[in-house]
Amino acid sequence: MSSDPLVIFTPSGKRGRFPVGTPILTAARQLGVDLDSVCGGRGICSKCQIAPSYGEFAKHGVTVRDGALSEWNAVEERYKQKRGLKDGRRLGCQATVQGDVVIDVPPESQVHKQVVRKRAEARDIIMNPTVRLCYVEVAEPDMHDPSGDLERLTDALRDQWQIEGARADLHILTTLQPVLRKGGWKVTCAIHQGADDATPRIMHVWPGLHESGIFGVAVDLGSTTIAAHLCDLQSGEVVASSGLMNPQIRFGEDLMSRVSYSMMHPGGAAEMTAAVREGMNTLFDQVAAETGIDKAQIMDAVFVCNPVMHHLFLGIDPFELGQAPFALATSEALHLFARDLELDLHPAARSYILPCIAGHVGADAAGVVLSEAPEKSEDLVLVVDVGTNAEIVLGNREKVLACSSPTGPAFEGAQISSGQRAAPGAIERVEIDPVSKAPRFKVIGSDLWSDEPGFAEATAATGITGICGSGIIEMVAEMRMAGLVDGPGLIGSPEQTGSDRIFADGRTWSYLVWDGTEQGGPKITVTNRDIREIQMAKAALYSGARLLMDKFGVDSVDRVVLAGAFGAHISPKHAMVLGMIPDVPLDKVTSAGNAAGTGARIALLNRSARAEIEATVRNIHKIETAIEPRFQEHFVNASNIPNSAEPFPNLSRVVTLPDLNFNTGGGDDGGRRRRRRG
Amino acid sequence: MSSDPLVIFTPSGKRGRFPVGTPILTAARQLGVDLDSVCGGRGICSKCQIAPSYGEFAKHGVTVRDGALSEWNAVEERYKQKRGLKDGRRLGCQATVQGDVVIDVPPESQVHKQVVRKRAEARDIIMNPTVRLCYVEVAEPDMHDPSGDLERLTDALRDQWQIEGARADLHILTTLQPVLRKGGWKVTCAIHQGADDATPRIMHVWPGLHESGIFGVAVDLGSTTIAAHLCDLQSGEVVASSGLMNPQIRFGEDLMSRVSYSMMHPGGAAEMTAAVREGMNTLFDQVAAETGIDKAQIMDAVFVCNPVMHHLFLGIDPFELGQAPFALATSEALHLFARDLELDLHPAARSYILPCIAGHVGADAAGVVLSEAPEKSEDLVLVVDVGTNAEIVLGNREKVLACSSPTGPAFEGAQISSGQRAAPGAIERVEIDPVSKAPRFKVIGSDLWSDEPGFAEATAATGITGICGSGIIEMVAEMRMAGLVDGPGLIGSPEQTGSDRIFADGRTWSYLVWDGTEQGGPKITVTNRDIREIQMAKAALYSGARLLMDKFGVDSVDRVVLAGAFGAHISPKHAMVLGMIPDVPLDKVTSAGNAAGTGARIALLNRSARAEIEATVRNIHKIETAIEPRFQEHFVNASNIPNSAEPFPNLSRVVTLPDLNFNTGGGDDGGRRRRRRG
Repeated sequence: MSSDPLVIFTPSGKRGRFPVGTPILTAARQLGVDLDSVCGGRGICSKCQIAPSYGEFAKHGVTVRDGALSEWNAVEERYKQKRGLKDGRRLGCQATVQGDVVIDVPPESQVHKQVVRKRAEARDIIMNPTVRLCYVEVAEPDMHDPSGDLERLTDALRDQWQIEGARADLHILTTLQPVLRKGGWKVTCAIHQGADDATPRIMHVWPGLHESGIFGVAVDLGSTTIAAHLCDLQSGEVVASSGLMNPQIRFGEDLMSRVSYSMMHPGGAAEMTAAVREGMNTLFDQVAAETGIDKAQIMDAVFVCNPVMHHLFLGIDPFELGQAPFALATSEALHLFARDLELDLHPAARSYILPCIAGHVGADAAGVVLSEAPEKSEDLVLVVDVGTNAEIVLGNREKVLACSSPTGPAFEGAQISSGQRAAPGAIERVEIDPVSKAPRFKVIGSDLWSDEPGFAEATAATGITGICGSGIIEMVAEMRMAGLVDGPGLIGSPEQTGSDRIFADGRTWSYLVWDGTEQGGPKITVTNRDIREIQMAKAALYSGARLLMDKFGVDSVDRVVLAGAFGAHISPKHAMVLGMIPDVPLDKVTSAGNAAGTGARIALLNRSARAEIEATVRNIHKIETAIEPRFQEHFVNASNIPNSAEPFPNLSRVVTLPDLNFNTGGGDDGGRRRRRRG
Repeated sequence: MSSDPLVIFTPSGKRGRFPVGTPILTAARQLGVDLDSVCGGRGICSKCQIAPSYGEFAKHGVTVRDGALSEWNAVEERYKQKRGLKDGRRLGCQATVQGDVVIDVPPESQVHKQVVRKRAEARDIIMNPTVRLCYVEVAEPDMHDPSGDLERLTDALRDQWQIEGARADLHILTTLQPVLRKGGWKVTCAIHQGADDATPRIMHVWPGLHESGIFGVAVDLGSTTIAAHLCDLQSGEVVASSGLMNPQIRFGEDLMSRVSYSMMHPGGAAEMTAAVREGMNTLFDQVAAETGIDKAQIMDAVFVCNPVMHHLFLGIDPFELGQAPFALATSEALHLFARDLELDLHPAARSYILPCIAGHVGADAAGVVLSEAPEKSEDLVLVVDVGTNAEIVLGNREKVLACSSPTGPAFEGAQISSGQRAAPGAIERVEIDPVSKAPRFKVIGSDLWSDEPGFAEATAATGITGICGSGIIEMVAEMRMAGLVDGPGLIGSPEQTGSDRIFADGRTWSYLVWDGTEQGGPKITVTNRDIREIQMAKAALYSGARLLMDKFGVDSVDRVVLAGAFGAHISPKHAMVLGMIPDVPLDKVTSAGNAAGTGARIALLNRSARAEIEATVRNIHKIETAIEPRFQEHFVNASNIPNSAEPFPNLSRVVTLPDLNFNTGGGDDGGRRRRRRG
């Protein structure tokens, strides 16, 4: 009836007229307003808290008077006494409509609450996890109408929660009868739905009301480290994060050496599978202990990983990934029980592994795509996740392309004479004075530059031990800008560069960064071979990006996202000086941090995102660099460090690159022909 | 084109015109003719054998001339040489249409072949098992279009077999890559579909063609014995049958003592679960060994059992079944992995347990219903499965009712003074001469009557040890017909009966059947207490049937089916004399044998039958005798053995029952007042 009071919900703006006496929760459900409840409106959980507003609302065309809601009642008072309720809050299942009213649903009362991400360009996560809690009151058995306890429970889920056709895992059957009787026929179910259209499964039944304490874990299973975020499956909050070294490292530092291990040792793959699963369980112990929960409270686990780790984790011999045509055993996403992977979580815990894109572009790249959503981007975005292999994704709403490029380990500090992993003591930032050619730098573990007072004291504990991946990128770029290295990548002689830090080193020249020998430390230098290694790595990365641009039919991209732990530390300016990434305005280069891990977290907290990334991955155009002649072409062309800013018009607004060619003979690598002095 | 040759298939009668050169298998598929193939028409399996007919077919309006099919080809010749092919048979994938032709599809070439049952009134089983074999040729990996090996396999299943959306179990993933390569990208999949609309799952992948050797097992899990039929999942043939004692017998002979055991002993239910599962594996070892197959070739297992065994097998404490309101943990059918039940079959073997009807009417009764199909019967059929509990089903197309009735163990020979299990030496058939009052009988293990020459020799090995269930029914009925027992159930005195085999036995009279004491055997007698036990049991059975008839609103039924091993041995005439079952013409009483086990076999061989029995069970009207006042009423009225044939007009055409009342005092059980003589 039109004379019924008007109920307006904010922030959704949904509105409708309801008879006097209608509970706000009922009105919300009828209008499809997102208002949480575990107890189903029985006033025993506090999930349906609402905040009524009073006064005149010109915008909504209503005036809300005192008495627009029923009076504060005994259920609310008891709740407030026992568990607290903020001033101005009511329980939506208790407060009933008495007159026109405006009801605000605070974020924490929404089922599909948003988990806000820090970066402005990143989309927020909408909570829609695979597991939720539903309190039900179950009919008692009746000899006049015999039926199973489980069937009366599923009837209750259907009638009280509109959950149709729920099925129970076997372990539920074996414990259901005492739990129902202990709870006096009132129980809370954890309901699992892996996809929006999947059969609901009863994972757990607690006697009485059980309104919180269910968790999920999002895991980035890397070749070197395994990182896990433990998330509250109701709030979406990350309650603990932890990491450990991948225990497979003892079988080989990099992926290919692990593939070789499995080829050379019968049972080697199984050994590595056992090792990574054991490591995973240790990591789960860590995050559970940190949060003070039982591992059995972890009911869902989502994984991203590269193809080799993917296969080893699943117990698949990665043999085929070690040789062309690099065939994956399966590329589709996998919905499994956690116990199938020997993970010691809740006995019915599920696990989900994101799809792989191709033989070299794994579920980790799918995680990056899920996090960065190039397929939703208006402008053309290039996403690079740099590691031993770089995964490169280019796309916008029109289409998305992906490839991987064998950058090698140089960007991780390996195969660099003074290179090392990112760890305290490693040089991570560098500036070289263009006049004096002297470096100043920062090391991991201290915020001071090396020429600032107190630097020696600040680094005394760690020493200055080497150069990490992001440090070597800055180092080479700074050397290029300071005129120590020419376009083709040769370090000039002391005469050519005017620097007394240049010294002869075999048939080429090297640059002294730091001499720590007096303090018992190393002499940190950059050799021409180091420059070559970095050139090869950056050429591989750039050629991959360039190949995708060719395939897309473009010469430039609108923005660049650097993903991965390494990406977070790269200086965009230096990366562009080196020619690692195509030229874009510097403010269009952003770091996405561990985007793969974020993708895992999104898939954990939002089941719809799973179907979404599965569809996106199916539609991605997969490019295999190994069989693209243009990739080789680009690679050859990309090995130079730009000699002038010409190919980088955006960069030229920021830095000037001297035109240099230290090669005094002919050919590209004249440095090799330099004679040893002495 | 209408000038294309006409192809007519028999026995289906389906017909259509096809261009010259169309393979018969292709024509069959287009017309929906049921013609088998594992290899998908590649001429390497022989499943698509057909028999062309030649000559004039007035009925079909065609004349088939020589040359109506393409000539016998090299593939067929090779097949015939290697594996044999009956004369007149062709391979449907090789023979192509050249002119009008009539093609007979022999039964063994049909996918949905019929498994013929022996009884005329029983419906045949149409083969539609949950597991089938499909040979596919899989695309090799291609770097230009990267995809997983599994995805190319599922594409092949879709394109070559119209199997949409097949998923693989995890164990398939771990072995798929070497199998595909070993088979040269030609493999055979075992595809599981538990229901017609269930997601197809790949259970196994063999390299190359694998056209036979998949089995299933149908199990009747009884309180006393476990019986299994091993069936070929392609032909439907029972290749082995075996049974063993339920190892739970050591925890209690009957169900209620097992429920008590679990109540009195913490962990007792788990012990019994372990015992029955272990017994099940032993039984599977037996049938596999008998057939000479590996247990891993058993890919599906179907179970029927009573509610207590159902719960104990599943690992559910049967506590609630021991007390009102007799609540089942679950009544619905269960689709599980066999390994969930610790069954050692194929690693991906499935298991299916039929639904339970009510707390006392189990999956075994559902098996009986599936076998006897009362819901499809035009006439009103009463099905009784007699055991410690009798399950009673009454119904026709209109509706079906079911109840159970506590008959107690008397029908199994327990609580009878000379009673014993059905075993060699037990009296199973009896006739008592109405004049001499002397018995003649047969014992299990011999076909001779006791008054025939050679009987003593024939029974020398076993002796004459007691009376089994069917024997005691005949005995009491014969005693009634011979005038040794009156309507109320009293044994008369020697004077009243005129028999010198009657002797005083405490306060009542007993009847001497056989005195084996001279040979060191027992004296076999029937006491008045034995008569009372049988009266109680038959009254319970009859009252249950009568109650269902009341609920149905009828006074008579059209036919009676006796199910169960015991049912197979009961003499309908004697059962009717006793008043165990309602009066119907004797030729309307049939024995269904182990109908529960047959139901399990139907569910094993035809997956559609599963959905069917699940729907039927849901629609059955469940009657709980314990809360029906009319059951008690009927019970009191049914304890008499009919005094004349009046309530049994059909019976009176066959036998005459003397009007007798040996009670010389007053009241019903005057026998008790007899004084001990001597």
